[in-house]
Amino acid sequence: MKISIERGTLLKAVGQAQSVVERRNTIPILANVLVEAEGDSVSFRATDLDIEVVDRVPAHVERAGATTVSAVTLHEIVRKLPDGALVQMTDDGASGRLVVEAGRSHFTLATLPKEDFPVMASSEYGSNFSAPAPVLRRLFDKSKFAISTEETRYYLNGVYMHVADGENGRVLRCVATDGHRLARIDAPLPEGADAMPGVIVPRKTVGEMRKLLDDDDAQIAVSVSETKVRFATPEITLTSKVIDGTFPDYSRVIPTANTRRLEVDAAEFAKAVDRVATVSSERSRAVKLALDEDRLVLSVNAPDSGAAEEELAVAYGDEKLEIGFNAKYLLEIASQVDRENAVFMFNSSGDPTLMREGDDTSAVFVVMPMRV
Amino acid sequence: MKISIERGTLLKAVGQAQSVVERRNTIPILANVLVEAEGDSVSFRATDLDIEVVDRVPAHVERAGATTVSAVTLHEIVRKLPDGALVQMTDDGASGRLVVEAGRSHFTLATLPKEDFPVMASSEYGSNFSAPAPVLRRLFDKSKFAISTEETRYYLNGVYMHVADGENGRVLRCVATDGHRLARIDAPLPEGADAMPGVIVPRKTVGEMRKLLDDDDAQIAVSVSETKVRFATPEITLTSKVIDGTFPDYSRVIPTANTRRLEVDAAEFAKAVDRVATVSSERSRAVKLALDEDRLVLSVNAPDSGAAEEELAVAYGDEKLEIGFNAKYLLEIASQVDRENAVFMFNSSGDPTLMREGDDTSAVFVVMPMRV
Repeated sequence: MKISIERGTLLKAVGQAQSVVERRNTIPILANVLVEAEGDSVSFRATDLDIEVVDRVPAHVERAGATTVSAVTLHEIVRKLPDGALVQMTDDGASGRLVVEAGRSHFTLATLPKEDFPVMASSEYGSNFSAPAPVLRRLFDKSKFAISTEETRYYLNGVYMHVADGENGRVLRCVATDGHRLARIDAPLPEGADAMPGVIVPRKTVGEMRKLLDDDDAQIAVSVSETKVRFATPEITLTSKVIDGTFPDYSRVIPTANTRRLEVDAAEFAKAVDRVATVSSERSRAVKLALDEDRLVLSVNAPDSGAAEEELAVAYGDEKLEIGFNAKYLLEIASQVDRENAVFMFNSSGDPTLMREGDDTSAVFVVMPMRV
Repeated sequence: MKISIERGTLLKAVGQAQSVVERRNTIPILANVLVEAEGDSVSFRATDLDIEVVDRVPAHVERAGATTVSAVTLHEIVRKLPDGALVQMTDDGASGRLVVEAGRSHFTLATLPKEDFPVMASSEYGSNFSAPAPVLRRLFDKSKFAISTEETRYYLNGVYMHVADGENGRVLRCVATDGHRLARIDAPLPEGADAMPGVIVPRKTVGEMRKLLDDDDAQIAVSVSETKVRFATPEITLTSKVIDGTFPDYSRVIPTANTRRLEVDAAEFAKAVDRVATVSSERSRAVKLALDEDRLVLSVNAPDSGAAEEELAVAYGDEKLEIGFNAKYLLEIASQVDRENAVFMFNSSGDPTLMREGDDTSAVFVVMPMRV
């Protein structure tokens, strides 16, 4: 193999690859990236056995070939090379070394045979559709905060992407929950997605996939099977196993009969919650909301450190209500609101509370109260 | 006590105080800041029993008084208050509570009696002088990287500030070393500093004191006794115990007879060292320098991961030399050079090497070689 490639292009491709690689590996080749040169492009492939990313970039290929080399070391080297440098990579196929050269820098890196690299088996994808990057970005960005980190509830360790009946017809829906709060985000159903099986996309995949979604104009090709999901741009293909489990019936958790309606400026609300939570004990982080005629009083009472209270002018016309929440949950939910007004729908102080942006039901959040 | 104070002023004062407070305290009152209001100013005092900082700021004092309250909580609260807010602090002297109010926010914080706060005993300072902030900044910024972190060699856990004979007369000198590298920085001796006893300023004090030195136009009042050192601006007074030990005779470590002279662009050199060190093993981080007629070859050989080599055009006219260094030490020393050219003076591959900026001997660095 003998290739030359522009440093910026190389950095982006290797960067994406090395981020999939797990830092602590018992299998040495999983620390490596598979470099394959053919025609006028080079592909960089990395995997942790659950996720595989392939990044194909243009390069001048003088001699085709393939090898594997430490993803982290290659990334570090390329990162430190001067901007605009032309990087040459040469592997004689015999010495077990890859030579990386740029300007007066010369590196010789240990390689492992390309035959040992575990390429992910290809799947039959029953469902293939295309979605604009901003649509997918919204679906996952607004739901991922609610992913559970409890390993025993492994079926909650991801975002449940599926087709559902929304208020105005069929939708592509992402749901995540950890039992304390839940996010349900809808987007118009893309053409060809109707028959998609519901899949739980693991947390790490959500993070890696997110990097494909930065370009507002990009169309993302999505392929889904019962066991795998694939997100692809013309350059990058990310394939991931999905979580083998059943996502619980979340619809029962979403309150439909809550009638007490609070409308509040989301940013003001978040700042006030953050302030009063300062005196709360590390553990409970409980904030009390006391609602009365167009008036919200947030308060925290922590016997050890003190107390805090703040009043907000809000729109509220229902019966008086006192209800407690974990400050962290309130803050995270409030930060999902892009528009000015957050609408909370309460029932009683013991029931789950619903939050949405104005009257838009395409993004709905549920949070469980706590006793205060 | 009843005071009102502008939020920005308060934030700066409390910020300086809470940074001195140790996060893990077995003595509860050491987590607190002593707030004392009198006349038209309020002082904020915090200590860890080794360092004491007092920040005095203008305020509207309606009722004089004093109390102590958690430094971290007060800082967090003030930080989260909106910019430009007027903060009112009220303590009735009986309830054991301090009320902090701003706009619609209302906090009640637990206090501890002001009588229990350990105010640092005042000292007789035998030596008092004044120095411009940029001068002190240079003395400590350029030396502190070499402070030892080895607790058993406690007398190296700080910067040795003393009066010495420089090449052009008496100087104010700061020296730090950890046995592997050494920094010796000189400044013209300020008036009144002649009789100053040499003191070892602890690492934490160097860090805290640094915050007083950002203003280029500030004059810093320095007071030194055998056991304490004090740095003061009109607003802030930082008093610190000095390390009770004898700083070793560093002059023996500084080579005077090294004759092989290398001149190199410091930035280019640092980048090249950083690049070749990428392949070095985590532990040794050894980089080899091979010097020949106007030519420097940096190289690393790590059997496991590979090898790296880079050539630099330099000014070198002496005998060939091969010498090895810890890459981290070379990088840290090269980053002390503000001007273009670093001058290295070598003897043999086993001897300490000297580095300075051009021919300026007011900042001199020594680094021990390692076998490669």
